[in-house]
Order: sequence, then C-alpha cells, then structure tokens
Amino acid sequence: MSSDIKINRGLKGIYFERSGISDIDGANGRLTYRGYQISDLAKNSSFEEVCYLLIYGNLPNHKELKSFQKKLILYRNLPKEIYKIIELTKNGHPMDVLRSCISALPSLIKLQSKYNKDFLLEDGIKLISQIPVIVAAHERIRNNLEAITPDQSLNHSANWLYMLNGEKPSKENEKLTDLDFMLHAEHGSNASSFAARVTIGTKAGLYDAFVTAISTLSGPAHGGAAEDVMTMIEEIGEPENVRNYIKAKRLNKEPITGFGHRVYRKEDPRAVFLKEGLKQLSIENNEPKWFKILENVVLEMKPYARHGLNVNVDFYSGAIYNLQKIPKDLYVPIFSIGRAPGWVAQCIEQFETNILIRPLTEYNGPKNRQFKEISER
Amino acid sequence: MSSDIKINRGLKGIYFERSGISDIDGANGRLTYRGYQISDLAKNSSFEEVCYLLIYGNLPNHKELKSFQKKLILYRNLPKEIYKIIELTKNGHPMDVLRSCISALPSLIKLQSKYNKDFLLEDGIKLISQIPVIVAAHERIRNNLEAITPDQSLNHSANWLYMLNGEKPSKENEKLTDLDFMLHAEHGSNASSFAARVTIGTKAGLYDAFVTAISTLSGPAHGGAAEDVMTMIEEIGEPENVRNYIKAKRLNKEPITGFGHRVYRKEDPRAVFLKEGLKQLSIENNEPKWFKILENVVLEMKPYARHGLNVNVDFYSGAIYNLQKIPKDLYVPIFSIGRAPGWVAQCIEQFETNILIRPLTEYNGPKNRQFKEISER
Repeated sequence: MSSDIKINRGLKGIYFERSGISDIDGANGRLTYRGYQISDLAKNSSFEEVCYLLIYGNLPNHKELKSFQKKLILYRNLPKEIYKIIELTKNGHPMDVLRSCISALPSLIKLQSKYNKDFLLEDGIKLISQIPVIVAAHERIRNNLEAITPDQSLNHSANWLYMLNGEKPSKENEKLTDLDFMLHAEHGSNASSFAARVTIGTKAGLYDAFVTAISTLSGPAHGGAAEDVMTMIEEIGEPENVRNYIKAKRLNKEPITGFGHRVYRKEDPRAVFLKEGLKQLSIENNEPKWFKILENVVLEMKPYARHGLNVNVDFYSGAIYNLQKIPKDLYVPIFSIGRAPGWVAQCIEQFETNILIRPLTEYNGPKNRQFKEISER
Repeated sequence: MSSDIKINRGLKGIYFERSGISDIDGANGRLTYRGYQISDLAKNSSFEEVCYLLIYGNLPNHKELKSFQKKLILYRNLPKEIYKIIELTKNGHPMDVLRSCISALPSLIKLQSKYNKDFLLEDGIKLISQIPVIVAAHERIRNNLEAITPDQSLNHSANWLYMLNGEKPSKENEKLTDLDFMLHAEHGSNASSFAARVTIGTKAGLYDAFVTAISTLSGPAHGGAAEDVMTMIEEIGEPENVRNYIKAKRLNKEPITGFGHRVYRKEDPRAVFLKEGLKQLSIENNEPKWFKILENVVLEMKPYARHGLNVNVDFYSGAIYNLQKIPKDLYVPIFSIGRAPGWVAQCIEQFETNILIRPLTEYNGPKNRQFKEISER
C-alpha cells in the first residue's frame, strides 16, 4: 500500500505560525529575544528585565520595571492549601509536585476571566512568580524543613536561592542563577511551548497551558539534558577518563549528552555564557574537576563539530547546579523557572491570533473488519 | 517583507504521523475504530470492549475481557491523599480538580518505569479506571456528601453513575451512558490527543500525557461544545422559538453551537446514535421539550448542510446529560471519561515510533535592536 500523502514526522521543517518573540538562527548559532542579541542581554540585562521584554515586547523603563517587580513580589504569596498539597505529595518528583500545584491554583485563587489579553498577562506574571516558590517549598518540606517565607527585598533569582537554602546568596551566585534563567527564558516553538500553544488553541486558559508545558518539559528528551550531563560527568569521574569514555560511546554509536540540537548547526550561543559562569564558580568553590571534565569532553568531541554536534545550553547548567549543591531532580524544575516568561509570551501570541491546532494522521490500520460476537472471537 | 516560507496555520491539512487506531472519513461521514465501523460497535459492543479494542488492537475474547475488567475494578481504589486533594480544591472547576488529581497520582502510587510498552498499557488501564472515580468523588464532596465506594459488581458505566448518584442506574440509563462513552472514545489527532502525543514525544510518561490531554480538552473550543449546546437549548427555551433564534444568529453571522467540524463534511456518524438515545430518554422521563428543540434546530439548519454545517457528536450529548440531572460543568469531565482509551492508544502508538514533535515558527518581529541602559529607555 503506497500513498501520495507526505508524512512530516516530528513536524520537522513545518512552520505552523509566525512569531515575533525569539529568532533562532541555527545555521549561524545566533539567538535573539524580541530583536536583542542574547549576548547583549546576557552581558547587560537581568532576568526580570528579560521577563518584561518577552511578555510586553520592549525592555522596561525604570517605572515599568518597578511596577513589574512589585507584582512579582506580591504574587509570591501562595494560598495555604498549596503547602498542604505539597505535604501530601512530597515524595513525588519535583516536576510532578510543581505541576499538581500549578494545576490546583485556579481552584484556589481568584482568576479573572480567561479570554482577555490583560488578564492573560496578569496570570502570566502570577505564574512566573509562583513557580520558584512552589519548587523551593517542596525541596524544604520533603527534607522536613519549614518552607521559607519569600523575602520582599530580594529579586526573583536571589529570592529563589534564599527560599531554597534559607540564607541569602552571594552576589556571584545570584548573578549566575539570574544569567542561567535569562538564557533559558525563551526558545521558539520547542516542544513545551508548542504543546502550550496547542492547549491555548482550544481556548483554554494560561494555567491550563502551563500545566501542559510542565508535563511536556518533564520528558527527558526535552528538559532532562542538564541532569543527564551531570550523570555523565559522574560516570566519567576524572578528567583523564574522558578520552576513553567518548571513544567507547562513539564506538557503540551512543549519543553524547549535551551535544547536538534539532535547530543549531553551530555552537549554541547560550552555552558560551554558562561555560564562563561554570569556570568562575569552579574557581570560587575551589572545585575545578567538573569543569575540567567538561572541557575535555568538548576537546574530544571537536572532530564531530562539523556534523553539528556542538555543545548545547544544557551542557554546563547541570555542573553549575551541582556546584550550587542543588539535587539533580530539581534541574528540570529550574528549567521551568527560567522558561516561564517564554511560555507566557508564546501563549499570549497564540491567544491573539488563535486557531485550533489540529494536524492529521494517515490511517494505516486494518480496514472493513466484521464485528463478531464475543463467543466467536 | 514577504517570504517564501509556507505557514500552515493550525497545522490544517498537515500529516504528522501514520496511525492505525481510528479512521475518519470526513467526506462520507464515516468513522472506524481499529477497522470496525462505529455503527457496528455502537449496536453490538460495550465501552469496556471498545477500550480493549483501542488499546490492544483487537476485540477481546471472553478470557481477555474478564482479565481486563478485573484490572479496571482493581484500579478504582485511589490513595486517600486524592480525596484530601479533592477536599482542598473542591470549589474549582471539575476539570481542574480532575487534572490536579491525575497530576498528583504518580507521586502517590507506585508506577513502573515509564519506558516499556507493557508498563504504559498498565498505566493506561489505571487511568481509564481512575478518571470517573475522581470526577464522581468531587461531585459528591463539593455537595457535602460522602464519596461512594466503587461497586465491584458493576461495569465501568454503571459504576460511574452509581458513584455519582449513590444508587444503581436503570439498565436504560447505563446503556445510554455506555454508548455515549463508546462514541467519544477515540477520534484521531484531535487537539487533546495530539497534545498528549507531543508530551510523549519528549519521552515523558503516560500520566504526564494525560495531564496535557485534560488541560487541552478543557478549552471550550474542544471539550466545551456539549455544555454550549445545553446553554443554547436553555436560551431558546421553547420549541416554537427555534426559527427566530436561528434566524437572528445567522443574520449576525454567529455560529450555531453543535454544528460543523474541522473534519466532517457530512453528518457526524456518532450523532445519529445519540439522537436516538436522547429521543428514548426524553420519552422515558416524559420530558420531550429538549429533544423537540434540537429537532427544530436541525430542521432550521437544513439549508446550511451543504456547507458542511451538520450536527456533530456534541449536539445531543448535553441534552442527554441534562436529562440525567448531571450539572453542566461535568459535561467536559464526562468527555474525558469517554476519551481516556483513545488517549491511551494514541500515546502507546507515539511511544512505539517515538520522535520529538517540534514544528517551527517564522520570525516576524523586530531585528537588530541595540541594547540601551535603563536610564536611556
């Protein structure tokens, strides 16, 4: 049975929409948010500014940023039922607990009607603010510690580290975390953002779309790479083991975690900043081993770079989180803290030009089967 | 700025995969599950058989059905934490509460590893079984009634009605509900099933995919039509008001709820069975009004049938649920009870030939913006 229908597996190369949020130039390894180079933002901006930029389209002036930050701080207060749900489900994976809480919030807080751009924006700020509070509270509660009350004097990144550890972070640590969030904030129609748009396409609300996005990000092929890289580093153990490790992997045709991307053919432009951050942190903490292992992995992988096998954004994140003493199963939730503004921006865009997203499958199963009574089967 | 890139809005007409589950022949108004005509199944089969058919590919023999039913009954037992989460969130929309519980289950029950077809199948049976238990328990708890313990002697549909109302349903009521579930069980790559496949595409698990599916079904443009039809019936009020109501709507170019479908150009083959079911139920309950109103709506819409504006599956469901005294906000959760086996089948299929689903957007935003310090903005 042949057919003339073209099957676009994975929807590879298919454009489903126009978008004005981020521009990924995979061939040249460049990424812009709303027209600004990621490198300019990484050097000069902050995560809160980038959140504003992504969801409103422009960098904020002083007044706009102040009012935005005020809202972010306000929305850190969660209903007490959320802490009870965390307690009830605390042995689950942090992504599952985060998702259950985000799913429950529309039942617990007064949401405006779902079908107005201003309300969507407001829900978006709420979600950006609520995600780190939930993740940090879960980490505390599952370790039989009390959840930390958010500190109004701290910005988004510093407050996240404070809620996680119970002490205010160093300026360096805060800055590196802020950079990491900034670099994860938006990346076109990746699977979680795309799935969120499919949910918005049925006229569902932003909380619904975030639940979809969190579910989709939780898959190891999307949000799991940072964790996989850290596992690889631990498997390698010492810098001098890298050569044989890579050789064996290539011989068995196994992929090397943290290399390659569906879109980038050159080095992921975000990786360079995290590399520098990891290097500094390694020196600061006097723990150079992880960085050295990763440096050697890059060296051994050089011959494959022309096949597009360059390091991606996840390559250095895992090692950074590890040096920050963050447990591995929080790496994906951290990705979701960073990606939240991108999800908001994508959902608002989908909302504004909304259409049901419904592709087709070509039927290739049995035909014309006759129903038989159960005794004759 | 023009571009040669083709934008496939809503992915209309784009095939993303082959599928052997259901075949929708929109031009001729036919639908098959695994090669069996929906009409044959509606007349001869049951929802439990159809669940088995969809997820295993064949109709079960006696022994297979028995063992499948045994599992469905076993998995009705939910951890006590679920009832606490329902209590905490009971004032939320039933779809949100259902979703929060499904999201929480992986944190509460021992799940097998996610990456094996047999485990996926087992999780699928769990999910089919758990959804109606959660929806019924929420309906009881929000009305300050105790949740009903599932009755092991009842099949899936009868047990659902029993858990909802606290009394065993009449044979007619059970049969109509069973038929309604059967007709909603599967429908190709509709938005919720497609979104679930995007989630599975990142190698996430079946519970993750179901959470995505529930979020996506909750949108009024997907799962909300039955509710909208009932609202329309109530607005119309009396059979003699139909003509003027339709006239006014057409004059204002407003769509008539329950008519038209992205895929069907003829009458939805599922609608005819629900029409007959509603008619019988109306006679039984001695409440002919709703059916009469819908009959008149169809009559007034006849002139538009050649534009593909025929009744769809949701046209009669709402009125049926209404006669069953089911509150309107349970109509979408009921859809999810019916659709669960279709989601399972779609996810298993995606799992077996897995690939990341990641289409593209064409960038149409600003370019080459220069970063300015905040004081200069």
